[in-house]
Amino acid sequence: MPSAPLPPPEASCPLPTADYPAVTLAHGGGGTLTDRLLHTALAPLLPPVGAPALRDAADVPLPQGTTAVFTTDTYVVDPPVFPGGTIGSLAVHGTLNDLAVAGATPRALSVALVLQEGLPLDFLADIAADIRAAADAASVPIVTGDTKVVERSLSATPTLYVNTAGVGARPLDRPPPAPERIVPGDAIVLTSPIAAHGIAVMGARMHLDFGPAARSDSANLAPALLAAYEAAPGEIHCARDATRSGLGGILCELATAAGMPFRCDEPAIPVAPFAAAACEVLGLDPLFVANEGCAALLVAPTAVETVLAALRAHPATATARVIGHVDPPSLDAPAGQVALTTALGTTRVLTPPAGHQLPRIC
Amino acid sequence: MPSAPLPPPEASCPLPTADYPAVTLAHGGGGTLTDRLLHTALAPLLPPVGAPALRDAADVPLPQGTTAVFTTDTYVVDPPVFPGGTIGSLAVHGTLNDLAVAGATPRALSVALVLQEGLPLDFLADIAADIRAAADAASVPIVTGDTKVVERSLSATPTLYVNTAGVGARPLDRPPPAPERIVPGDAIVLTSPIAAHGIAVMGARMHLDFGPAARSDSANLAPALLAAYEAAPGEIHCARDATRSGLGGILCELATAAGMPFRCDEPAIPVAPFAAAACEVLGLDPLFVANEGCAALLVAPTAVETVLAALRAHPATATARVIGHVDPPSLDAPAGQVALTTALGTTRVLTPPAGHQLPRIC
Repeated sequence: MPSAPLPPPEASCPLPTADYPAVTLAHGGGGTLTDRLLHTALAPLLPPVGAPALRDAADVPLPQGTTAVFTTDTYVVDPPVFPGGTIGSLAVHGTLNDLAVAGATPRALSVALVLQEGLPLDFLADIAADIRAAADAASVPIVTGDTKVVERSLSATPTLYVNTAGVGARPLDRPPPAPERIVPGDAIVLTSPIAAHGIAVMGARMHLDFGPAARSDSANLAPALLAAYEAAPGEIHCARDATRSGLGGILCELATAAGMPFRCDEPAIPVAPFAAAACEVLGLDPLFVANEGCAALLVAPTAVETVLAALRAHPATATARVIGHVDPPSLDAPAGQVALTTALGTTRVLTPPAGHQLPRIC
Repeated sequence: MPSAPLPPPEASCPLPTADYPAVTLAHGGGGTLTDRLLHTALAPLLPPVGAPALRDAADVPLPQGTTAVFTTDTYVVDPPVFPGGTIGSLAVHGTLNDLAVAGATPRALSVALVLQEGLPLDFLADIAADIRAAADAASVPIVTGDTKVVERSLSATPTLYVNTAGVGARPLDRPPPAPERIVPGDAIVLTSPIAAHGIAVMGARMHLDFGPAARSDSANLAPALLAAYEAAPGEIHCARDATRSGLGGILCELATAAGMPFRCDEPAIPVAPFAAAACEVLGLDPLFVANEGCAALLVAPTAVETVLAALRAHPATATARVIGHVDPPSLDAPAGQVALTTALGTTRVLTPPAGHQLPRIC
């Protein structure tokens, strides 16, 4: 967590002293100070020694017979450090997952930082190291980047925002997972227990201790999802990571986009135990709490066992399971409706979330 | 320019009323309010009716025999509206230019917004329209995007940050413009007069009126640069847009990266007349004032006339001219030195800028 804002450098000096330990506006000017910032606090983001230097734009060679897939997300999570991750690892995982649910193998990442002046340089270096570690663990290079510095907010601890864009490659001969490919009978597979990320971030923000198990599920799902696509080519009709609006939010979105009703078995939906307890106490609905390492897949029924086996071989999706299925639209179950069968056997129809239960969780 | 911050919505209501005319944190939650924001203020960013909806990740088909080129930049310019452009048009032009100086034809853009709560929705809609207009004028589609909302700074007018990443295509059989390809004898071609953007933004920020000609040079240079590459294949050894640190900053960078000394003729460097006057009065050096529609090209001497003719056919680069050349390193002119011959015949050696003359100009 960043420490309290530092006082500004001596007003008598137009440039900060070399050992001033926080970000200043001058670091954002594109001169030698920007360069120094890059080679100190941001050094983890630079390519390894011997590799080509970072450029404003970089080549991303794609294999023959593939199409480029392109995504972007800005991360503004508050606080930037939370149990199970930081804004740095989250920014890498989130963008890798967006490529993976689009059926693409991640090939390159960009990192664009917006730093508030006063952000301690050692904190920035830690975040840069997290970005690098997450990208290295995924074997995806960071090929281009940008750094801007903005004025501090006088009313808050200085923070940073991280945009990661990504380029991936998808075989041209494989149809992309997409809501239009969802058909009645498809099984709804959930890769992992829900609600861990949102509750872990809320705990960090509000200084609530939910115990040592209370950690974000932030994880790179790409290896697991790509293995599942490979195991059952064309049989995963749609995939979506259950991020900002939670599993409930993305199921509502997908049912609407597909023009089909979904039916889920509520007791079959695993909730991270610490998050279930916290939601119970706090009156939150875990279905609408954000996740960062959890996806829903719409799978042809004949391929379900194959897909589950492929997913379960990966730690991030070891508990993948079927939580429901797609029905044909009917009078009882109109297109776009997501209905849950509760433990009591009654039906609960989900309403898409309006605003947020917990803001700034990604 | 955004008007003063609006009061927050009624505290008694957990969700803002439908007609509350400013961004609220709830707009960032990924629910139906995010969706409503997308379809009202941000509607200009959505694809035309009939085209596929925006996805978290989008395909970017690339022509055979090309490599993908990838870039990113976040724009934080203060104020977000200035003579000659806005943060919206600037964000599109800047990223198109980064692809163009890398030798790539822009193929797709992403737009990721960070909105401060309290930002008036009609102002946001104007910026979204600017983004759309600039992308349409360049015939480059916006294929993916993201919107986040962050708490307002209590001490400042709410603003927004715009990240644009871009994917382009470069023919595999054409060597990319790069500092390593610079050789002694190369001519230094400047596409347009310098210093307009930085001075126009400073004037807007400080409420200084530099007259009706005082406008940013923000422009899409891709058509002109691509025409020049086409006219003289392989002969443009390096290209760089002279943005944040100005023409002086990028010449120092390129000379260092190339390991060659550069020699420029100072009177040959055109300065936008209003900017020259403002720099004179304010004691700023136009060489280190930012530009957003101006690039330097390092060109094989035999191809200079061809390149100039190609550039001059485009309005944004109609006054392209040679301002200097590359020398072999020597005792008098060591590698990395940028020397100017002044109007008096004396030599001025440029020092790379440290911080900023003018922060947040892009």
